[in-house]
Amino acid sequence: MPLGEKSLIARIRRQAVRGSAVVAGIGDDCAAIRVPRGHEALITTDFSLEGIHFRRQWHPPESVGHRCLTRGLSDIAAMGGEPIAAFLSLALPRDLRQPWVDRFIGGLLALAKQFDVTLAGGDTAESPHGILADIAVLGSVPKGKAVLRSGARPGDRIFVSGRLGGSSATLRRLMRPSHEKLNRRYFPRHFFPEPRVALGRVLREKHLASAMIDMSDGFSTDLHHICEESGVGAQVYADAIPLAEIGRPACQVDFLSALHGGEDYELLFTAPNNLQIPRDISGVPITQVGQITRDRKLLLTTNGTVRDLKARGWEHFK
Amino acid sequence: MPLGEKSLIARIRRQAVRGSAVVAGIGDDCAAIRVPRGHEALITTDFSLEGIHFRRQWHPPESVGHRCLTRGLSDIAAMGGEPIAAFLSLALPRDLRQPWVDRFIGGLLALAKQFDVTLAGGDTAESPHGILADIAVLGSVPKGKAVLRSGARPGDRIFVSGRLGGSSATLRRLMRPSHEKLNRRYFPRHFFPEPRVALGRVLREKHLASAMIDMSDGFSTDLHHICEESGVGAQVYADAIPLAEIGRPACQVDFLSALHGGEDYELLFTAPNNLQIPRDISGVPITQVGQITRDRKLLLTTNGTVRDLKARGWEHFK
Repeated sequence: MPLGEKSLIARIRRQAVRGSAVVAGIGDDCAAIRVPRGHEALITTDFSLEGIHFRRQWHPPESVGHRCLTRGLSDIAAMGGEPIAAFLSLALPRDLRQPWVDRFIGGLLALAKQFDVTLAGGDTAESPHGILADIAVLGSVPKGKAVLRSGARPGDRIFVSGRLGGSSATLRRLMRPSHEKLNRRYFPRHFFPEPRVALGRVLREKHLASAMIDMSDGFSTDLHHICEESGVGAQVYADAIPLAEIGRPACQVDFLSALHGGEDYELLFTAPNNLQIPRDISGVPITQVGQITRDRKLLLTTNGTVRDLKARGWEHFK
Repeated sequence: MPLGEKSLIARIRRQAVRGSAVVAGIGDDCAAIRVPRGHEALITTDFSLEGIHFRRQWHPPESVGHRCLTRGLSDIAAMGGEPIAAFLSLALPRDLRQPWVDRFIGGLLALAKQFDVTLAGGDTAESPHGILADIAVLGSVPKGKAVLRSGARPGDRIFVSGRLGGSSATLRRLMRPSHEKLNRRYFPRHFFPEPRVALGRVLREKHLASAMIDMSDGFSTDLHHICEESGVGAQVYADAIPLAEIGRPACQVDFLSALHGGEDYELLFTAPNNLQIPRDISGVPITQVGQITRDRKLLLTTNGTVRDLKARGWEHFK
């Protein structure tokens, strides 16, 4: 059953709830959206490409739709912003069956509803090869209050939310030549990662974070991004990095997955030394894992031994 | 020479001019952008996929970059808006050579500069197959003043800007098995279409248009969109449709290219009967081609004969 663009758009229009900020949505040349008074618009775009970001045989369609939108929401969270609307560009191969698309859209819209985000537009096309999605998310933040990557200062402490490595360690299990079928319920951080929107907002409102980024590329790479934009270095305590648990029975991930593995969508932020950072914010555990330094190197301390911390972020599976 | 994402982002950052509305641009999780006070944000996204929207052997990289951004700017124009910033998601095959990307970005940035638009963000990825681009454009329009597709009323006259069919007739020449190499200078509406931003703004400011759309799919299909969203029909006068001229010596395109051919990026709008519409606005000729009717059919009148006008918009080349 070939997929008609028209039917796809009609289906999305029927299912998507329109938020009050959305003046014109799907069905016009552009969406028209009210950004709250005194706020700036935040915009981010992220690909989800079959064979690069997901595989049909590994990822159920609901998970692909959920992860697609998470990528955008997580970027809004990392600025301390509020998401408002999403725009989906979706190119589908001619032979793709309708149920896959329905379930993909279902997964995306379920997450959108949870965060009160309107799917307000996008584009559809035939794909020459594989499923291609690109999500744009529009959000807002009070003027001048966005938490940037460039605000880290020497002496600031480095924090992460949640536990790291769960997503990439799951991916490694999927990549095993003869992997068992994973029950996605026991691997939520890989199949249905929750963007840390509430946490990002609290950190911004309470002025707790001097710099922030979401960990999509992996801790080591994302810390490099913070240090590069801020013109600083960092010292990381290997022992302090919180390791995720995956599967049933629950099993702690290896250290390298936590250090370099991407797509956890947890937040990495820095905080001035004089501020008290709670151990739990919006129900998410917060852990100090290091300190910002003046010297622009990134160092990892393990049992008293200090070595360079290279950015070895996850570069998607090949 | 494989293309490094990092070098691509660095190059764009170096070349892109940052407009004053852009508070934070490339190099953070999101771009932060000030929407003018009293304005709404307009957002649109459009794919440019190799093999669907362009072919490397037909389209020089500058043209692909130009057309990619035109798709977004034209949507902003069709709402009567002002473009502010663009966001490029770009996935490239591993073996693509650097000069292609440089020339693509060059074509895109040249058009961005012309319209004072900042390339403020996006995403990069490896493509599993072919060059994949998705452009998002953010613009603004005074609150409640966007010209929608849904405003056409019975009795309104139907107008088009410019001349139609130039882009698709060029495409047909390119598709000839042994086509001559086209000098792109003589086929500007195909290779370097100019989005009608100034015209759209004037129509909105002077309250001349009751409904508007940009002709990306083709006149017949885009008129259907207007009629569907407005709940009306239309009568079109075949004789009145302005045919484009292409090539050197200049040659008028066939009627069907003008009627159905896509990607001209001219504006199609309706105007209440009591308003005087100039024959030229912002240097672009304006032609009445029909009238909106209460009866929800679309009809084409040729030499006194009336027949149904089917939506046969260009569905990309296969």
